[in-house]
Amino acid sequence: MGDLRRDPVVNRWVIIDGERAEREAIFQMELCAPIPAAECPFCPGREAQDDEVFALGKPGRAANEPGWWLRVIPDKYPILRREGTVERRLEGIFDLMNPFGIHEVVVETPEHHKGWPELDDLQVERVLSTYRTRSLDLRQDDRLRQLLVVKNHGRAVSAFQHPHSLLIALPTVPKGVEEEVQGAAYHFRQSQRCVYCDVIEQEVQMGKRVVLESAQFVALAPFASRFPLEVMVLPKRHAADYETIGDEELLGLAKLLKTVLGSLEEVIQNFSCSIILHTAPLHQDLRAIYHWHLELLPKITKVAGFEWGTGFFINPIPPEEAASRLRVDSER
Amino acid sequence: MGDLRRDPVVNRWVIIDGERAEREAIFQMELCAPIPAAECPFCPGREAQDDEVFALGKPGRAANEPGWWLRVIPDKYPILRREGTVERRLEGIFDLMNPFGIHEVVVETPEHHKGWPELDDLQVERVLSTYRTRSLDLRQDDRLRQLLVVKNHGRAVSAFQHPHSLLIALPTVPKGVEEEVQGAAYHFRQSQRCVYCDVIEQEVQMGKRVVLESAQFVALAPFASRFPLEVMVLPKRHAADYETIGDEELLGLAKLLKTVLGSLEEVIQNFSCSIILHTAPLHQDLRAIYHWHLELLPKITKVAGFEWGTGFFINPIPPEEAASRLRVDSER
Repeated sequence: MGDLRRDPVVNRWVIIDGERAEREAIFQMELCAPIPAAECPFCPGREAQDDEVFALGKPGRAANEPGWWLRVIPDKYPILRREGTVERRLEGIFDLMNPFGIHEVVVETPEHHKGWPELDDLQVERVLSTYRTRSLDLRQDDRLRQLLVVKNHGRAVSAFQHPHSLLIALPTVPKGVEEEVQGAAYHFRQSQRCVYCDVIEQEVQMGKRVVLESAQFVALAPFASRFPLEVMVLPKRHAADYETIGDEELLGLAKLLKTVLGSLEEVIQNFSCSIILHTAPLHQDLRAIYHWHLELLPKITKVAGFEWGTGFFINPIPPEEAASRLRVDSER
Repeated sequence: MGDLRRDPVVNRWVIIDGERAEREAIFQMELCAPIPAAECPFCPGREAQDDEVFALGKPGRAANEPGWWLRVIPDKYPILRREGTVERRLEGIFDLMNPFGIHEVVVETPEHHKGWPELDDLQVERVLSTYRTRSLDLRQDDRLRQLLVVKNHGRAVSAFQHPHSLLIALPTVPKGVEEEVQGAAYHFRQSQRCVYCDVIEQEVQMGKRVVLESAQFVALAPFASRFPLEVMVLPKRHAADYETIGDEELLGLAKLLKTVLGSLEEVIQNFSCSIILHTAPLHQDLRAIYHWHLELLPKITKVAGFEWGTGFFINPIPPEEAASRLRVDSER
């Protein structure tokens, strides 16, 4: 048996128990039934189907024509509507609002079969740079409160195999971000320090949960990981907003992510994960308090109402073991 | 498109959008590969394998012998260890403790194939009464901070088809309960009222999210349901601790749960869910603030890192529709 561990930011307790039988199922994931490449809506030749919001491509290329390296298009089945105003209202004691917001897809490359580990550094950098560009643009809209970026990686997480990410901008701050902000704000009030900077300092010094470290970034297996082989990537330079990332950092982040994903693919068969950008809510000054980061959450093999119902997690792969396995593979 | 809704207790925002294509997959669940009845560790004849903690049975029956109606046994692969002391310690900035606690299984009936809807009212009442008995006993241990009860119902949620529940007692309060306590405490400070009592009053008056109402209980589709066909069951009588439930309430709760589960089985093919007891943390006086309740969380068909990573949910079945479908079936 292992430990009960507390996440230092959001105060979530997790059982880390490396002796459990369900460990075995983790190292192989089940594939989703894929949409055939011939029907892929993101492949070149179907540009006219979607009116692009943003694109990178050959100089002189016209919008919605071939020749792109990357396209941002509205999601065909949006969960949020970009028109109109935010109407906040009450139904008795309940709060609700209309689903105003942005829901876009970043088609990350014209190449249907290439995941990030197979793409050039430059192409992954273009994706990361597009997140920054869209973030700077969407920030202008003061109806929006939070930008979410979710990248689905791998063939077990989505029927859409063509590399893509989702850009979602909400008129409210979702609970996952709000909890981090509250936890970080509490730590700052107590210590006048950023909790994420403290975590980085300690983890780099201890080393045992470090997956990969570069001059600018560190990839960690979080101390109280909820999920097996969960990885967190943090910039060493304190910054609340992702959109302040510099050009050199973009390239460094692209290289680091490619290596970490490559290691995860070595360790887990059919590896798939969600990569989630955590950046500060908009229109609040959280520069001293918050610290942007990425969460890599492997597709969860066994799902139970237990975790949803209790907020309590049992993780059979200690993060020290996860880091050690992934470190070996990143050093190959 | 629907609404963005805020949960009134834990401040979680959810998109409720009844027009999404993924609705269709919800009404049929995938079965787990079952452990054959011949190998079931919970069936009569294998009593000697486990040293029972508690049992109900024929008068004069000896422990670990046949003749039981219900048994509580230690889990064979416990996540927590009942021996020793709670050792709380630090690793730099991180908190951890050893996994002290209780992990028991309630074998709810000798009958392998009978779920709650097929059991007698009396037998379901015995299960609910056993939760109370174990809770009163475990409360004596001041190393414990929280009792969790999780009932797996149905053939899509667990390989163990023999009806059973888990009793887990933790030396810390899990995040799901702590959030509810904080939210309810905030509401109480503002209004000097219980937020759950306010919800009950409004929902009973409005009616549109009520699944079933009895003299003592109400079953609701929560206003900001995270999951399709999620149901919450609350006692009308304000009480923070489940263990204060009266004998008459136990029988009423058994009847109501049987009916609600029966309706869910009518609406969803191969219906399975987790039933989670939310009761007040131990050794704190939360009598005025908290209100115990049950959450019925249907097995989640589509699982994405998105929800885990962001704390943001998209639910394609509006709770008003869920209540309406379940109400019709409970009135059959």
